[in-house]
Amino acid sequence: MQKANGTLIPIGGNEDKGIDADEMYTLEFIEEGILYHVVREAGGIDSNIVVIPTASSIPVEVGENYLTAFSTLGCNNISVLDIRSKTDSETEHAINLIKKADCVMFSGGDQSKITDKIGRTSIHTILTERYFNEKGFVIAGTSAGAMAMAKEMIAGGSASESFVKGAVKMYKGLGLIPELIIDTHFIKRGRFGRISEAVAQFPKLVGLGLAEDTGLIIKNNTFEVIGSGMVIVFDGRKIKHNNHKILREGTPMSLTNLKTHILSNGDRFNIKKKRVEVLPIEAPFI
Amino acid sequence: MQKANGTLIPIGGNEDKGIDADEMYTLEFIEEGILYHVVREAGGIDSNIVVIPTASSIPVEVGENYLTAFSTLGCNNISVLDIRSKTDSETEHAINLIKKADCVMFSGGDQSKITDKIGRTSIHTILTERYFNEKGFVIAGTSAGAMAMAKEMIAGGSASESFVKGAVKMYKGLGLIPELIIDTHFIKRGRFGRISEAVAQFPKLVGLGLAEDTGLIIKNNTFEVIGSGMVIVFDGRKIKHNNHKILREGTPMSLTNLKTHILSNGDRFNIKKKRVEVLPIEAPFI
Repeated sequence: MQKANGTLIPIGGNEDKGIDADEMYTLEFIEEGILYHVVREAGGIDSNIVVIPTASSIPVEVGENYLTAFSTLGCNNISVLDIRSKTDSETEHAINLIKKADCVMFSGGDQSKITDKIGRTSIHTILTERYFNEKGFVIAGTSAGAMAMAKEMIAGGSASESFVKGAVKMYKGLGLIPELIIDTHFIKRGRFGRISEAVAQFPKLVGLGLAEDTGLIIKNNTFEVIGSGMVIVFDGRKIKHNNHKILREGTPMSLTNLKTHILSNGDRFNIKKKRVEVLPIEAPFI
Repeated sequence: MQKANGTLIPIGGNEDKGIDADEMYTLEFIEEGILYHVVREAGGIDSNIVVIPTASSIPVEVGENYLTAFSTLGCNNISVLDIRSKTDSETEHAINLIKKADCVMFSGGDQSKITDKIGRTSIHTILTERYFNEKGFVIAGTSAGAMAMAKEMIAGGSASESFVKGAVKMYKGLGLIPELIIDTHFIKRGRFGRISEAVAQFPKLVGLGLAEDTGLIIKNNTFEVIGSGMVIVFDGRKIKHNNHKILREGTPMSLTNLKTHILSNGDRFNIKKKRVEVLPIEAPFI
């Protein structure tokens, strides 16, 4: 995998109505504990943080919500970049903000909007180059903002009792961490089926299910779990009976021999080697 | 494992309010498709089926509900055995019904009630002996009635974002299939954490998560998946970093290298050998 010098912080989302259809109209509050990690990784309360509420259908409210949340932590250099079109992503204003930022934070909402309005634009190029080249540059995202970090992005597909082909909708994400497929609100919304189908489609990628109020700090090809919930890692390299390719849409699928890890605060996973380093028991909560 | 001649049909439950707290006050409707399998395994519409609504807090309504459901399928020899205490389990009436039944069906509700009011009574003994010795004798159960078939029974523990020790409450079940730990409503209620903790406690047992409207036909040491949803199999024999024993209650847990299978209608699993036999793709829905 290509070594990135920057830092990614995908977050599993938190505190919304828990209903898929309403997802794009709700605020995604994230806990101060998680947000504190974002600020720390960005360089502290004086760092320049740019919030991008593009995924949301209520970008103004979401932007204000983050301004308040970061201010509560003492941050004094926060701005909101309210991109609503590809044209917005090409403005001098947008480009300058992204060039100067120490941290860019993507809100929740509909991850496809991030692809459609930011993907393949100048700010996407700058974000990518800065992430790969600049040590200390942080891209954080919650819910939709976390999912969009992948190359093979889960774009939709609600929780379902059945495991059928075609239930998950895949789309192209920003491609910042192409080795991962990221899902969020994992436990509350019962998204086991959709991450499994995504892994069946792309068995060489690692599928991650992030619980709410839970995130990852990804740097140096390794992630560390932060927050109060669990992260489930699906490693599909040794799966057998993966009948995804030959089945018709809507047919029940089977997938066997999926290697699964359940990680908590402080545990680490080497993305390149696909290997877990579990925290010693006596370690404190981070 | 001890070879049983009879048949077990645990079912993942269906059609309730999806709220743990209300679980014991709701009816557990099960789909005709699944119920049809129960009737067929029991020997057809003339077979003697005894419904035990003990787990439910509304046993009369639940009993009537099943009478209606089985009648819809053409069954004409159904009775309800409304056991509400250990004393009820020792009556001549109860013993005679269980001795004569071709199939006993346990309703949903609170699985601990099954243990407390039927466990270690005469009818428990008769059920166990008949299940192990009599070919064609069927014990079916939905939701609580499915979970109670295990020896190490999940008694409670709601869905949680975090994977912490002590979140799952274990209790003794009827011990009909001691090789398995069974959870139900698995997807809708996000019960990934609690089955994982149960498997961490008993890593030699196979953990099963049954989706709603989904069941298993267990006979000859093998189960076959029936219904519309998925069954998730957690094989913990090769888990690493299982820190369950040494952690204090409430501490976040980690568990790695859990082998996971996701099975659908028609797939089979050899419980003794812990081996999957996935259905060929051209096979029809059963």
